Amino acid sequence: MSKKKVIQRINLSEIKDPDFLQTLSLDELKQLASDIRLNIIESTSKNGGHLSSNLGAVDATIALCKTFDFKKDKVIFDVGHQCYTYKILTGRSLERLRQKGGVCGFQLMEESPFDHFEAGHSSTSIAVANGMAIARDLNKERYNIVAFIGDSSIANGLAFEALNDVALQKHKIIIVLNDNDMSITYPVGGLSRVFRKYGNSAFYAKSKSFFKKIFCWNPLGRGIYHCGSSFKNWFKFHALRTNIFDNWGFAYIGPVDGHNIKDMEKAFARAKKIDKSVVVHIKTVKGKGYKLSEGDEKGSWHGVSPFDKETGQATKEKKYTWSKFYSDLLLEEMKKDEKIVTIVPGTGVGSYITGIHDIFPKRTIDVGIAEEYALTMSGGLSVSGYHPVVSIYSTFLQRAYDEISHDLARINLNATLLVDRAGLVGNDGKSHQGIYDEAFLISIPNTVITMASNRGQSKSLFDESLKGHGVFAIRFSKDQCKDGFEEEVVPFGKWKEEIKGKDIAIVGVGPEVEDLKAALKDKNVTLINAIYQKPLDDEWVDKLVKYKKVIIYDAYGVINGFPRYLASTLLERGFKGELVIKAIPDTFVPHATSSEQKQEYKLTVEDVISEI
Amino acid sequence: MSKKKVIQRINLSEIKDPDFLQTLSLDELKQLASDIRLNIIESTSKNGGHLSSNLGAVDATIALCKTFDFKKDKVIFDVGHQCYTYKILTGRSLERLRQKGGVCGFQLMEESPFDHFEAGHSSTSIAVANGMAIARDLNKERYNIVAFIGDSSIANGLAFEALNDVALQKHKIIIVLNDNDMSITYPVGGLSRVFRKYGNSAFYAKSKSFFKKIFCWNPLGRGIYHCGSSFKNWFKFHALRTNIFDNWGFAYIGPVDGHNIKDMEKAFARAKKIDKSVVVHIKTVKGKGYKLSEGDEKGSWHGVSPFDKETGQATKEKKYTWSKFYSDLLLEEMKKDEKIVTIVPGTGVGSYITGIHDIFPKRTIDVGIAEEYALTMSGGLSVSGYHPVVSIYSTFLQRAYDEISHDLARINLNATLLVDRAGLVGNDGKSHQGIYDEAFLISIPNTVITMASNRGQSKSLFDESLKGHGVFAIRFSKDQCKDGFEEEVVPFGKWKEEIKGKDIAIVGVGPEVEDLKAALKDKNVTLINAIYQKPLDDEWVDKLVKYKKVIIYDAYGVINGFPRYLASTLLERGFKGELVIKAIPDTFVPHATSSEQKQEYKLTVEDVISEI
Repeated sequence: MSKKKVIQRINLSEIKDPDFLQTLSLDELKQLASDIRLNIIESTSKNGGHLSSNLGAVDATIALCKTFDFKKDKVIFDVGHQCYTYKILTGRSLERLRQKGGVCGFQLMEESPFDHFEAGHSSTSIAVANGMAIARDLNKERYNIVAFIGDSSIANGLAFEALNDVALQKHKIIIVLNDNDMSITYPVGGLSRVFRKYGNSAFYAKSKSFFKKIFCWNPLGRGIYHCGSSFKNWFKFHALRTNIFDNWGFAYIGPVDGHNIKDMEKAFARAKKIDKSVVVHIKTVKGKGYKLSEGDEKGSWHGVSPFDKETGQATKEKKYTWSKFYSDLLLEEMKKDEKIVTIVPGTGVGSYITGIHDIFPKRTIDVGIAEEYALTMSGGLSVSGYHPVVSIYSTFLQRAYDEISHDLARINLNATLLVDRAGLVGNDGKSHQGIYDEAFLISIPNTVITMASNRGQSKSLFDESLKGHGVFAIRFSKDQCKDGFEEEVVPFGKWKEEIKGKDIAIVGVGPEVEDLKAALKDKNVTLINAIYQKPLDDEWVDKLVKYKKVIIYDAYGVINGFPRYLASTLLERGFKGELVIKAIPDTFVPHATSSEQKQEYKLTVEDVISEI
Repeated sequence: MSKKKVIQRINLSEIKDPDFLQTLSLDELKQLASDIRLNIIESTSKNGGHLSSNLGAVDATIALCKTFDFKKDKVIFDVGHQCYTYKILTGRSLERLRQKGGVCGFQLMEESPFDHFEAGHSSTSIAVANGMAIARDLNKERYNIVAFIGDSSIANGLAFEALNDVALQKHKIIIVLNDNDMSITYPVGGLSRVFRKYGNSAFYAKSKSFFKKIFCWNPLGRGIYHCGSSFKNWFKFHALRTNIFDNWGFAYIGPVDGHNIKDMEKAFARAKKIDKSVVVHIKTVKGKGYKLSEGDEKGSWHGVSPFDKETGQATKEKKYTWSKFYSDLLLEEMKKDEKIVTIVPGTGVGSYITGIHDIFPKRTIDVGIAEEYALTMSGGLSVSGYHPVVSIYSTFLQRAYDEISHDLARINLNATLLVDRAGLVGNDGKSHQGIYDEAFLISIPNTVITMASNRGQSKSLFDESLKGHGVFAIRFSKDQCKDGFEEEVVPFGKWKEEIKGKDIAIVGVGPEVEDLKAALKDKNVTLINAIYQKPLDDEWVDKLVKYKKVIIYDAYGVINGFPRYLASTLLERGFKGELVIKAIPDTFVPHATSSEQKQEYKLTVEDVISEI
């Protein structure tokens, strides 16, 4: 008579650290993985967050935490949008995930001693790991350093520079390549087509994803599939398959099933023993264990807003956002103007560019997580008579500062930057705030920086950008875009007097100006809509100099951007009045809702009115 | 009786465009190459400039200009520090190379219709070429687009991102890989050692450099040398050697002797005919044809000041520069403090880090042209208790904006940035100006920005940076560092009152403050040395608010940096006086001497005094 094993079930809320994993049987670990998945689905359905990437990494994280001792070993989750399981296993609750006071959606050092670094932007983990390894070896200490990085992230220039140096420096790190065979958005480029030719033999099925978009830069990737004779294919594959990283100086283990905890434990244990840097290549299914996200080819379940677990429907009404509005605008313009080429660095879903790609595949280019390249390549398009429109999140634009300056602005080439997620982004927190681009773009000559308060102005700005004024940034938030389109022509560089008043002038930026306009109706206050943050409207600056009090209101950028640019210019022109700046302070803003953030920094419309 | 051929010799100053090349015999082309070399040596010995890289590219450029028609075809010289021959062949004289009104040291579109793009920073050419190719193909036009890129430049993240996308986009470009087997500075990393093991057999000698530091990221590179059996080596090499780029989706031609014009003509002609993107791999000798530069292993002949052609001695007395001073300071500190690790992204010669590397090889890391990686890796060092000192040129710091913010400042990690070549750089021109970093660093929270006026302050700032104030930038110019060391302690964030006066205050930045101090002796003017540009010295800002007139003088940054940061803050605090800013305007500054540039923008000490 067989005795049924009793499976111990872990109460997730009682976890303090990962030590308990050592006592669990394989079945118990599987049960734990299942419970963690339910917890992640529960939390993200309530709080929003990154779903697919986290579900895909549950088993691997359990295996990691069982094999390594992260009280002494280090782990860096690249980007960090797959670390929910790690948070749970290190004693953190997802109950208030991404909410003010709750856990952050990414690794955060102040949150736990188990977080050894933190990110939010991609492709930094290998560089960080190598820095840590150099330090460890200088100290003559012994512990493991793990960089956990996805297939899309490793194809970025920073990750490449890091791999290049890791191979040379000879300080051991362990790279876990989480290959989920899927980028955030639709497959970038055409390489995936190459693989289809070879059908679905077990051999190719097992290996193809390794060579796909992730390793499209791998010189071997294509060759294997291109060679004429199948023997040659076979030989090359078998002779070299395991040597791709090994030949670069890394040991290579894999591919390992990233949902088989036991196999991964073995692989990680082997990786610990090897005396040089090693890549453990695990194959995972993004969205694993949730019926809706597992079949998601479009990337709709990558980052989610609160949703109903059963139906997958968003629980809050889906807003028509500025992102969608600008996407619609762009599509219309592309229909009219054949010289527009849209470039997006991997954020096609979030900025609604995927739909445009379906209609204009030749003029819509998703370059993957390659912001630098996106901007420099735009220079090549621009100099050839095309008008590049780069759709990019504010926070990721940071990575292309040099390229905006050196490859576009310096040569005075035309390009429209659709700067999405400008301003406070709310729950994503510090690493994703879109509040710095205004300030850093001001430091680049020949750049135009704008933000509209309504749809009509947006259209006018977009049209103006196509006329050719160099680098023309149009910033917009991720918030709802209010209804109603009224044709409005904004002359280049001009501000708009929304209300004529006396003595006191408010100079505002963005959609809040519309709210201010409504609220200020009966007050004798001038309200200026500073649609252009650079250049300043000279005529208006001169007029403002005569005011007794000027209030500069910018809820979309840090104080060192437009506010101080204007304030200083006023002073240079002889302003003798009182100046108040209402803007985001010079700081990194932690996660909370954007309205909580605005309240904290006293940036609501009411706060501005109280200054009158 | 053999008839001696008459060799037609070309008068370089009569060249209008490269058409004449078609009529020359091979011997005449060789003679031309020789004459061009003499001209380059002559010009650089007089004007300074890039010598070695240009001498190495003479023959290749002749072959390019003979094979392609750059009235219709396009060429982008990566970095651009190898385009002197191209300038000559397209009708430009090097007589006044890099001088005001003379030709620029890099490609410059406004200079000639033959310059199809321009650069100064490295690794942009492939991205630009691909943008051009997309445009050409959308236009259904037919012409060739050539990216001419060196071995060091192609190993950068931006170049990698571009190669990755070129392989996918399928728009044909021609990449000429100018492999001169030498980076700007000493060999980066340890891979070069690997090759030495294999001696100097013709086989390896011919191929090794292709796999060296340049292609250290090439998965095959190391494997070939690491494999156990020589047959396996042989097979892999022969089966795959020509497939490295081919397998990535590129055709591959080479290696070709980059000093054999005829061979290159054939290779380029073949490249034109191939219907997909192609890499032509040419092997050149940096500094070719000049006895002193040809044997230069250290990179001393890469960028040169005026020199005597015969002896190689500098014609102007070698100054003791700020770069050297900070290098000496750093070395002293590294001797005392084992926790300092110095990181330099390829500019070890210019910033005198090579000597430090010789003494502390484990704590001095040259990562090559990989600015992003340099900063992110520093984060890993810093979080592990080491203090990274990143030695970097101001203009190249631009490429690491995101990494400074996201991987250091956001987490409040400590790092010292030794920002070399800050301020106007003179003859290198627009692409190399060090005048923006102050402004873009101000947009990053948690950063400290400083500049000393003398050696004593510099030492104090350096010491302070090691105490841990987050990202601590110490800016300094490429100019001479005046003699004399006087111990001086600058408390954190404090300015220094150099002269006590009344009504008028001058707030100055950098070494010019010392000159001002001397010049202002008898004037009743307050002179403040704003050693910290961020944070501002709050006490002093409050005192300045009471002045009738404040003059902000910053000859090392654009107006949107420290000057407007301070001016706005004064106004926010209630300043009612007059304000004058003497700073570099918000523009890209073309090549001239830095003193010509200062005069043009009225930034001399006399200009400031005239404002009193």
